[in-house]
Amino acid sequence: MPTLVLIRHGQSEWNLENRFTGWWDVDLTSKGVAEAGEAGKLLAEKGFDFDMTFTSFQKRAIKTLNIALEVMDRLWLPTEKDWRLNERHYGGLTGLDKAETAAKHGDEQVHIWRRSFDTPPPEMEPGSKFDLKKDRRYADIDIPSTESLKDTIARVLPYWENRIVPELRAGQRVLISAHGNSLRALVKHLSNIPDDEITGLEIPTGQPMVYELDDDMQAKERYYLHER
Amino acid sequence: MPTLVLIRHGQSEWNLENRFTGWWDVDLTSKGVAEAGEAGKLLAEKGFDFDMTFTSFQKRAIKTLNIALEVMDRLWLPTEKDWRLNERHYGGLTGLDKAETAAKHGDEQVHIWRRSFDTPPPEMEPGSKFDLKKDRRYADIDIPSTESLKDTIARVLPYWENRIVPELRAGQRVLISAHGNSLRALVKHLSNIPDDEITGLEIPTGQPMVYELDDDMQAKERYYLHER
Repeated sequence: MPTLVLIRHGQSEWNLENRFTGWWDVDLTSKGVAEAGEAGKLLAEKGFDFDMTFTSFQKRAIKTLNIALEVMDRLWLPTEKDWRLNERHYGGLTGLDKAETAAKHGDEQVHIWRRSFDTPPPEMEPGSKFDLKKDRRYADIDIPSTESLKDTIARVLPYWENRIVPELRAGQRVLISAHGNSLRALVKHLSNIPDDEITGLEIPTGQPMVYELDDDMQAKERYYLHER
Repeated sequence: MPTLVLIRHGQSEWNLENRFTGWWDVDLTSKGVAEAGEAGKLLAEKGFDFDMTFTSFQKRAIKTLNIALEVMDRLWLPTEKDWRLNERHYGGLTGLDKAETAAKHGDEQVHIWRRSFDTPPPEMEPGSKFDLKKDRRYADIDIPSTESLKDTIARVLPYWENRIVPELRAGQRVLISAHGNSLRALVKHLSNIPDDEITGLEIPTGQPMVYELDDDMQAKERYYLHER
């Protein structure tokens, strides 16, 4: 049975400050570092091991993976990093405090942007200090100006099918360290969750989520390791 | 002109204790962590950047790379890890304090083992607590019982030719974090250093060594970045 474990990165600086982060490359807080270490410890204690690992282009997910692997004594495992596992791009909301955004745009509008399946936030303005179009890590891609969850799913799932599923089919045990919305994209697909439910699914930081998959790569079981 | 930078990992626990380490997977000391950070800082300050990175299966080299990349804000770069970049296998000397070894075997014999080009140390005894034959990271390879520098070169150079040279030829800027003897193997090849000289070449920990290569992948220039 294919083994797949998903981890949302530990607490980031902007999780703590309650700001929309998206593709901005903020670091983990010391709490986030501790969460990553606890995730590795829990995985090792429960007898989990891996052959292949995946993460995004964002340091909060990469460091979460590296810290967990170090605790598991598995730093030598191969890791593939790809922008398709990045967080949802929050467009013009990037960098804004969530309370300030609500005061400016109204609670209802903010709720729509955060919880709608297919309504993206306003586009990031060109020249914004959070604009990453000139960051060389994204030189080869047409970087989005904003994304709905639907848009995020549209770039996560082809990566899942093309890069991750073949590893699972070859019997590789896979660990993915990623973000709230890139993981929602996977959970929606694997657990067949409707559009209007997935946006409300909260994935806690630093908690390994285990998938037992069938041969069609659909969920037979999904659980958080700390609940077992 | 192809850019290649080599870094020997920062100080390890057994560098500090003056014990033969080889393939045993010891961690960095706090000084080693600091050295890795300084290497990243120096590379960034001098305007170096990379497209592809390589390291061994050993945490002291992997962590040195990760720490330097983090300081350079380049954690997202691809990394290929391979056992062929591991330290020379020190066989039966693994874990021994160098002074104790000299007291037991004599200074002259220890000098031969450390400085001979093609005389390997005694083989590791089966069942030694330092035996890694059952470590799953080496499950796919015929793990050596001991190695001379010549043996180390014989597994480093095919990896260089097959995996690293193609990246350089494609214009990729390459950073390699590895070990005293796997780096000696590369330096001997690139700088055409005779057998009886290479064993005496000391490569300091945590100091980026820059190679400017010609189209035949031979050294036009070699220098330590902190000396420029």
